[in-house]
Amino acid sequence: MKIVIIGSGNVATQLGKALRAANHKILQVYSRSESSAKTLAKKLSCSYTNDLKSISGQADLYLLAVTDSAIKEVLRDFEIRNATIVHTSGSVSIKAFEKKFKNYGVFYPVQTFSVKHNVNFKNIPVCIEANNPSTKKKITQLAKSITKKIHFINSDQRKKVHLAAVFANNFSNHLFAIAEHMLTHEKISFDLLRPLIPETALKIQHDSPLEMQTGPAKRGDIAVMEDHLKMLSNKKKFKEIYKLISESITEMSGMRL
Amino acid sequence: MKIVIIGSGNVATQLGKALRAANHKILQVYSRSESSAKTLAKKLSCSYTNDLKSISGQADLYLLAVTDSAIKEVLRDFEIRNATIVHTSGSVSIKAFEKKFKNYGVFYPVQTFSVKHNVNFKNIPVCIEANNPSTKKKITQLAKSITKKIHFINSDQRKKVHLAAVFANNFSNHLFAIAEHMLTHEKISFDLLRPLIPETALKIQHDSPLEMQTGPAKRGDIAVMEDHLKMLSNKKKFKEIYKLISESITEMSGMRL
Repeated sequence: MKIVIIGSGNVATQLGKALRAANHKILQVYSRSESSAKTLAKKLSCSYTNDLKSISGQADLYLLAVTDSAIKEVLRDFEIRNATIVHTSGSVSIKAFEKKFKNYGVFYPVQTFSVKHNVNFKNIPVCIEANNPSTKKKITQLAKSITKKIHFINSDQRKKVHLAAVFANNFSNHLFAIAEHMLTHEKISFDLLRPLIPETALKIQHDSPLEMQTGPAKRGDIAVMEDHLKMLSNKKKFKEIYKLISESITEMSGMRL
Repeated sequence: MKIVIIGSGNVATQLGKALRAANHKILQVYSRSESSAKTLAKKLSCSYTNDLKSISGQADLYLLAVTDSAIKEVLRDFEIRNATIVHTSGSVSIKAFEKKFKNYGVFYPVQTFSVKHNVNFKNIPVCIEANNPSTKKKITQLAKSITKKIHFINSDQRKKVHLAAVFANNFSNHLFAIAEHMLTHEKISFDLLRPLIPETALKIQHDSPLEMQTGPAKRGDIAVMEDHLKMLSNKKKFKEIYKLISESITEMSGMRL
């Protein structure tokens, strides 16, 4: 397929690379910032522009990989109305396209991306949605060329997936940051905890996290919990988080899925 | 070294296997439960007992790998007073030994263990503490035989490491369980999020979690956050956790380590 990539951030970069590796032809990269457009275009061996009016009309598919808040703005000025266009957002509804386009959809890869760290797309789940069967077929074909894991998910469900991903990814990262902060404060290297974190992640690849729960709250070990809260007495926010998550672990340990 | 292992749970099992693989001689396993003692003894090709009075007096080191709350009880009835004895707990002070023993310490591996999943000890950090130089030397020697990562950490610091590990391991696992719960409620497979979780963990192996933070709270994306809170309106605890962690992300993003 001939593809134009709109955006030059983490998702645009990693998706662009994966599509090119799967023998699609990247025609052009658009970014508001000319230097960012140029950087990504170089990686994908294609042309670039920072002017929405100069986007090529020749692509089979336009991949809109910009931040959520920029989607509206880009769509307002994007004038190739017969385009097949998809966005890559977890939280923006497919309705964002409905007034202006005939063939549109969503291509949401459930993964955390960064420009510098390349990922293997083959095992990354992609959530697909489309406004008609022919577009669905086209997007599915594109997804199949880079991943084995395709899920047909509507906009309401996708928002829930995105919310769950915020808990599993963004919020857990913040807990790692809290742990880092505590150790750094004690002049202890965060390296002491680094090996623990991937192990926790691997444990739940085949088991349910609910069943893998361990720790003082799960054991109901009041003495250790009180000791921990005492240690957190001058860290109000961390103390609140400790209490709230411990309560939630206790509540949930009686639950079944 | 000739070693007696007191305990038969996750830590006892994995540590026993690693020590045996490093050519130490496991003399005996003790567990309150005879069948658990027997199961582990079989894996380590040694004898077993469920009677503290029958523990062999011939070991160079006694490794106390029982749950925190059982340590006191075991020490009350353990009568080999000339033993060199260590516990493996993150949160119990070295003082637990002081009234009864002359040579004692702590051997705390910072990792999450399970009986069935074998780990490679080589990269697992071990925190060591001892009450005198000769015991410190002995424990260090033991640690060196199974890991490259040895940290000398006193009881107060070790408690902080343990608390940080509760955030990084137990609490992040609970966030995975919340994500699982949300998806299951929508009849969406948790497999959709599974690949995301190790990627999040890998990202912080070389970078600071504080710097790797992403998501709506980090971006200050109020619209998405309000939408998420609406979706959580009938899940009081999850909503509180969402609000509190988002606030904490915002507070911390202005911080430097």
